[in-house]
Amino acid sequence: MKKYAVGVDIGGTNTDVGLVDTEGNIVCRGSIPTTRYTTFEPYIADLVALTLQLKAELEQSHQEEAVLTGFGIGAPNANFNTGCVVDAPNLPFKGVLDFNKEIGKHLALPVVLDNDANAAAYGEYIYGGAKGKRHFIVFTLGTGVGSGIVVDGRIVHGITGAAGELGHVTLIPKGRTCGCGRRGCLEAYASARGIVRTYLDLRRGSTQGESMLASLPDGDISCQAVGDAARLGDPLALQTWAMTAEWLGMAMANAVAFSSPEAIFLTGGPSRVGDPLMAPLRRAFESHLLFCYRSTCTISPSSLPSGDAAVLGAASLVQHGSGGGLNLRD
Amino acid sequence: MKKYAVGVDIGGTNTDVGLVDTEGNIVCRGSIPTTRYTTFEPYIADLVALTLQLKAELEQSHQEEAVLTGFGIGAPNANFNTGCVVDAPNLPFKGVLDFNKEIGKHLALPVVLDNDANAAAYGEYIYGGAKGKRHFIVFTLGTGVGSGIVVDGRIVHGITGAAGELGHVTLIPKGRTCGCGRRGCLEAYASARGIVRTYLDLRRGSTQGESMLASLPDGDISCQAVGDAARLGDPLALQTWAMTAEWLGMAMANAVAFSSPEAIFLTGGPSRVGDPLMAPLRRAFESHLLFCYRSTCTISPSSLPSGDAAVLGAASLVQHGSGGGLNLRD
Repeated sequence: MKKYAVGVDIGGTNTDVGLVDTEGNIVCRGSIPTTRYTTFEPYIADLVALTLQLKAELEQSHQEEAVLTGFGIGAPNANFNTGCVVDAPNLPFKGVLDFNKEIGKHLALPVVLDNDANAAAYGEYIYGGAKGKRHFIVFTLGTGVGSGIVVDGRIVHGITGAAGELGHVTLIPKGRTCGCGRRGCLEAYASARGIVRTYLDLRRGSTQGESMLASLPDGDISCQAVGDAARLGDPLALQTWAMTAEWLGMAMANAVAFSSPEAIFLTGGPSRVGDPLMAPLRRAFESHLLFCYRSTCTISPSSLPSGDAAVLGAASLVQHGSGGGLNLRD
Repeated sequence: MKKYAVGVDIGGTNTDVGLVDTEGNIVCRGSIPTTRYTTFEPYIADLVALTLQLKAELEQSHQEEAVLTGFGIGAPNANFNTGCVVDAPNLPFKGVLDFNKEIGKHLALPVVLDNDANAAAYGEYIYGGAKGKRHFIVFTLGTGVGSGIVVDGRIVHGITGAAGELGHVTLIPKGRTCGCGRRGCLEAYASARGIVRTYLDLRRGSTQGESMLASLPDGDISCQAVGDAARLGDPLALQTWAMTAEWLGMAMANAVAFSSPEAIFLTGGPSRVGDPLMAPLRRAFESHLLFCYRSTCTISPSSLPSGDAAVLGAASLVQHGSGGGLNLRD
């Protein structure tokens, strides 16, 4: 008999499920297309069915009983305090989604739900580069910009359960319109879409000659392409990442003035561009820090494998989150 | 026999000392002029002498032995982790000031030192409007702008011990020069000096006709005067506070995106102007909040008497800070 946590990473396109052993290995995994469902109940029924199928496969291949210890779920707009997702813009199900209740109709297992960025922070703490650190922040860059904040060994949830939305601090007053309806949010600058927008703005105003992406129409420019071009030395693409670094560095320095973490981790697609972002980011960050914080906080990419991080983070919610509460100390 | 904590509020001009009973009454108090001293040792010797004199007076008037439980000290640039003040710009003593060690030469009493804004947050929690609240922030407006942040019932100190410098988040990129050498900090807009600067900027560009402070030369305009004029309906002064409210409201909304507190408290001179600040501040704050935080966090002036708040805050460091650590939960 061996114990496994079910790690569920709910994305707008796919929902990834993995069974994770107590050492942090994803021993089997599967996926269902989130977009295929228009209502919540059949989605959960299939999620549970997939989980039981994975469990059965595992038992067959290992010739040993597998005990599931609970569901850890990372989801956009998830609220840890209520255990619900409410009106997530990127999920097809509207209204209040009570995962605990809905999964409970099928299986009697603990369900721990948290924001996907908080799950990423758990994962980093339990299995990644934040092991043993008591003050750190994980920024997740992707379609949006999220953050999971750990203060004194504990995830910050706040009175609403929705703390840690550093993608929506106002970075540039009256700046770019953000998807949230407000203006100047970090997300409008440092998300994949924001980065593409920066590139297009630069291209329109450029006097630097051709970019290697010149033949691509605006609508075909992706953040990935801007990253690839930068790694090949394209000046316009490099400038795009330098500007992103300046904005992100300023936002991170502001976050340090709040909680004075010892480390900041970056996850998500845009963070994997490497040097074109990380080198100017570290410089911008240090230059924006108040004197008392200089050289006290490192910036690193997440040390978790990119395909596994979200599932591991979700699983860690259960393995280390139930029982003694969500205190990461013990 | 009755127990008292020594609350010490160290300001650039005066150092106020009060003996505080376990119910939060300042039963006697005194003061020494900080500016009179150029070196640390005689300053501490006089601070200790004043404390013992207050104790003696108290014992004589109450005809009962007074037991001092410890020194709680709130000071600018104080570091809770190290117990030291280092190179405080507004104190006459330079270098590393080790209060514990220096007081220890005279008295064997516990010494708990923290940033003055953190002391204000403790005071608000133990004796003021934050009683029973687990997530709140205190902003101190004065010569500078400070903050004490409580997350999940605990003051946030961070890895450096210097967390919670929300006066030095970059609010306006490339904005006003701040005393810290950086640009666009909240402090450059919402400190007493920043507010005067806003008034003077408005006066120079004004087409609204005379302000009731028109006869005062620039150098004689104080924050207090701008507050008095606003309360009398002066349009330029009211506009000054409305702009201050807009900046402060934006900074507070950003802080909410970090820790999602249930309450924000304001202390310090500028916060006592009342409606000219508080009414537009509440509006600006709500308008800048991300949707999920709307109507979840109140803004109030500190409920502690303005003359007592700093000493009570300092005393509360000892009364509730020693022994079980600085956990405010228990």
